[in-house]
Amino acid sequence: MFEQIFENVRGKSPLVHCITNYVTVNDCANMLLACGASPIMADDPEDAVEITGLCGGLVINIGTLNQRTIPAMLAAGKRANELGHPVVLDPVGAGASALRTDTALRLIEELKFAVIRGNISEIKTLSCGSGTTKGVDADVADRVTEDNLDGAVSFARELARRTGTVIAVTGAVDIVTDGGRAFCVRNGCPEMSSITGTGCQLSALTAAFVTANLDHPLEAAAAAVCAMGLCGETARRRMTEADGNASCRNYIIDAMYRLTPAKLEKGADYEVR
Amino acid sequence: MFEQIFENVRGKSPLVHCITNYVTVNDCANMLLACGASPIMADDPEDAVEITGLCGGLVINIGTLNQRTIPAMLAAGKRANELGHPVVLDPVGAGASALRTDTALRLIEELKFAVIRGNISEIKTLSCGSGTTKGVDADVADRVTEDNLDGAVSFARELARRTGTVIAVTGAVDIVTDGGRAFCVRNGCPEMSSITGTGCQLSALTAAFVTANLDHPLEAAAAAVCAMGLCGETARRRMTEADGNASCRNYIIDAMYRLTPAKLEKGADYEVR
Amino acid sequence: MFEQIFENVRGKSPLVHCITNYVTVNDCANMLLACGASPIMADDPEDAVEITGLCGGLVINIGTLNQRTIPAMLAAGKRANELGHPVVLDPVGAGASALRTDTALRLIEELKFAVIRGNISEIKTLSCGSGTTKGVDADVADRVTEDNLDGAVSFARELARRTGTVIAVTGAVDIVTDGGRAFCVRNGCPEMSSITGTGCQLSALTAAFVTANLDHPLEAAAAAVCAMGLCGETARRRMTEADGNASCRNYIIDAMYRLTPAKLEKGADYEVR
Repeated sequence: MFEQIFENVRGKSPLVHCITNYVTVNDCANMLLACGASPIMADDPEDAVEITGLCGGLVINIGTLNQRTIPAMLAAGKRANELGHPVVLDPVGAGASALRTDTALRLIEELKFAVIRGNISEIKTLSCGSGTTKGVDADVADRVTEDNLDGAVSFARELARRTGTVIAVTGAVDIVTDGGRAFCVRNGCPEMSSITGTGCQLSALTAAFVTANLDHPLEAAAAAVCAMGLCGETARRRMTEADGNASCRNYIIDAMYRLTPAKLEKGADYEVR
Repeated sequence: MFEQIFENVRGKSPLVHCITNYVTVNDCANMLLACGASPIMADDPEDAVEITGLCGGLVINIGTLNQRTIPAMLAAGKRANELGHPVVLDPVGAGASALRTDTALRLIEELKFAVIRGNISEIKTLSCGSGTTKGVDADVADRVTEDNLDGAVSFARELARRTGTVIAVTGAVDIVTDGGRAFCVRNGCPEMSSITGTGCQLSALTAAFVTANLDHPLEAAAAAVCAMGLCGETARRRMTEADGNASCRNYIIDAMYRLTPAKLEKGADYEVR
Repeated sequence: MFEQIFENVRGKSPLVHCITNYVTVNDCANMLLACGASPIMADDPEDAVEITGLCGGLVINIGTLNQRTIPAMLAAGKRANELGHPVVLDPVGAGASALRTDTALRLIEELKFAVIRGNISEIKTLSCGSGTTKGVDADVADRVTEDNLDGAVSFARELARRTGTVIAVTGAVDIVTDGGRAFCVRNGCPEMSSITGTGCQLSALTAAFVTANLDHPLEAAAAAVCAMGLCGETARRRMTEADGNASCRNYIIDAMYRLTPAKLEKGADYEVR
């Protein structure tokens, strides 16, 4: 199934509007190009609404939100909802500050998201309305491991049901659920947590996958999570003793550029619960 | 002739003020350094005017324009015009939204540009006052190929005459004309369209080349287009089976760092019509 | 001593808040991750104050300052001062425009900095209240060489005494002083001046080192300067004939990812005056 999903991305070349942070925006653009999609960035409120109209999907990432970009997120999100375009939310740092938490909650209240992707601390913040996020990384106490996976799956499933949204919680094990089935994904490599923006790239990628597979948001989001992790594995194998996080970042995007639908189907490492 | 033009860039190290988008700004800065120029970025209106005064040239790129940066573009452009500094416009996404189209048209009306560089859809938008740009890439229907090259050259030449500006239309074949001679450039590689910001980098590079060769804007712009394409070819030859668009991006900048005036002279692939 | 300092960075993983320019922000984030620290970027005034409270240290870089980010710098800096967090200033382009010079001077007047790191032209501007900075690079007339090192050390020492701040002047020879001892550092490679943001990365790195070594700001800043230069040397040795500034940029960050406390201790090339 993931083979067909990825073929749709490569074949349809979805145009994805990104309202995203300025830290990792270049990597998000190159990741979208690597998977066969096209990126366009616009965060002026007036411009963002019109640009969203041209695109097939939208990703909203609050990593460096400010008073100018928040209205752009809301306005573009509403326009995308009107048009039936899938919208992906990356609630970067929700729980770390009131502005981030409140903005994320307001976005969820006013917009309909196809997928929300974040680390466990961010997702817990969205569920509870407050959190203990330590910066932009998951709180150690929260991290999803094999030991607490059952609880995390139940939590994600419950949130997905309540919000009517696919929830993707990423970490050592990733969980993607629409409230029914839950994909538990074990692709990836530890180096990914030492590279800025692998989460942001995954959110952009998810928007591309969901946009090219409108009838299958759950499977498309799970395929994007597997694809990103698989590229991390490919990048890790390519690393020499001189390579560090900067080269690994490039290798992950390179791996996506080279990934084929068949290789994704074969390399995807997940179980459905 | 291109040898001397590039020697002037390396020898004079022009300081280029960039008011550019936050997606590809880092690559633009490294590309300017790679060719021997120096970049400085300033987009606060107050700051931009003064910084332009220090520099030799200015590039205005509307890729992520907003209500704060538009006044900076206009004010810095006017100051650069007063000082006789060459100004290059990259009308990213003109035709894709009213804000982009209107801003590009207003910039052309209020400022004197040495060079305008864009894809064919963007340039057509500037010519007609409206367009069909699909995001930030050229519309398929518009693309310049060997089959429609004659018509594209005539179109670019007419626009160059009407605006008194060197027009650089980049695509599979690039056209650079001042309304008289037209350089048709065949350097480049297909991977460049899968890398975010190769167009933005070329616009910044063009500003450096024109700034270091004030008496020859047409030849300087054509040399920049050839140099960028030649670096794309070098990068492509360097790519292994594991490399994708991220590594190719680095290799293009690396190739510019290593490019010599003699190699540019020898590798430039163009005809003059 | 530098071994222990770097072990503290790796062991404590300080969370560093960066209010920095959008040109080099991605490299700053990856450099912080490479050294074992964690970055978080927030430049909305409301958000910045709260995010600073979560972090251990703050770096303020004025490379692309604007009317929205200046209040964020002041507000976050005051909060960091209240909390006793070290704050590092990178006065990018001070002397190049009134907005940059005035902002840098105002920041120094209103905030208490642990370290100020810049090139000699920027630091002279802070000392005199005006300058001759040519863009973002040091003015040739100002550059620190072996010939004028004594004078530069005296100048830096005097400024450090007057401001009660560790002053780090970086160039061919780097000087780090608290007004008493002065570390003269000879690590580094010439390619670093052809890469955008090596100075910005060093400022972020310095914030991480000082945050993890609160009782030794002078030694921590000197260790960061040595570590950055040492990584430049490693990167240079790794360069092939095809590599240029883009790959060198990646290799420097990679080298930091691989650098060990013992290798830093052994490779640091400095004298104390």
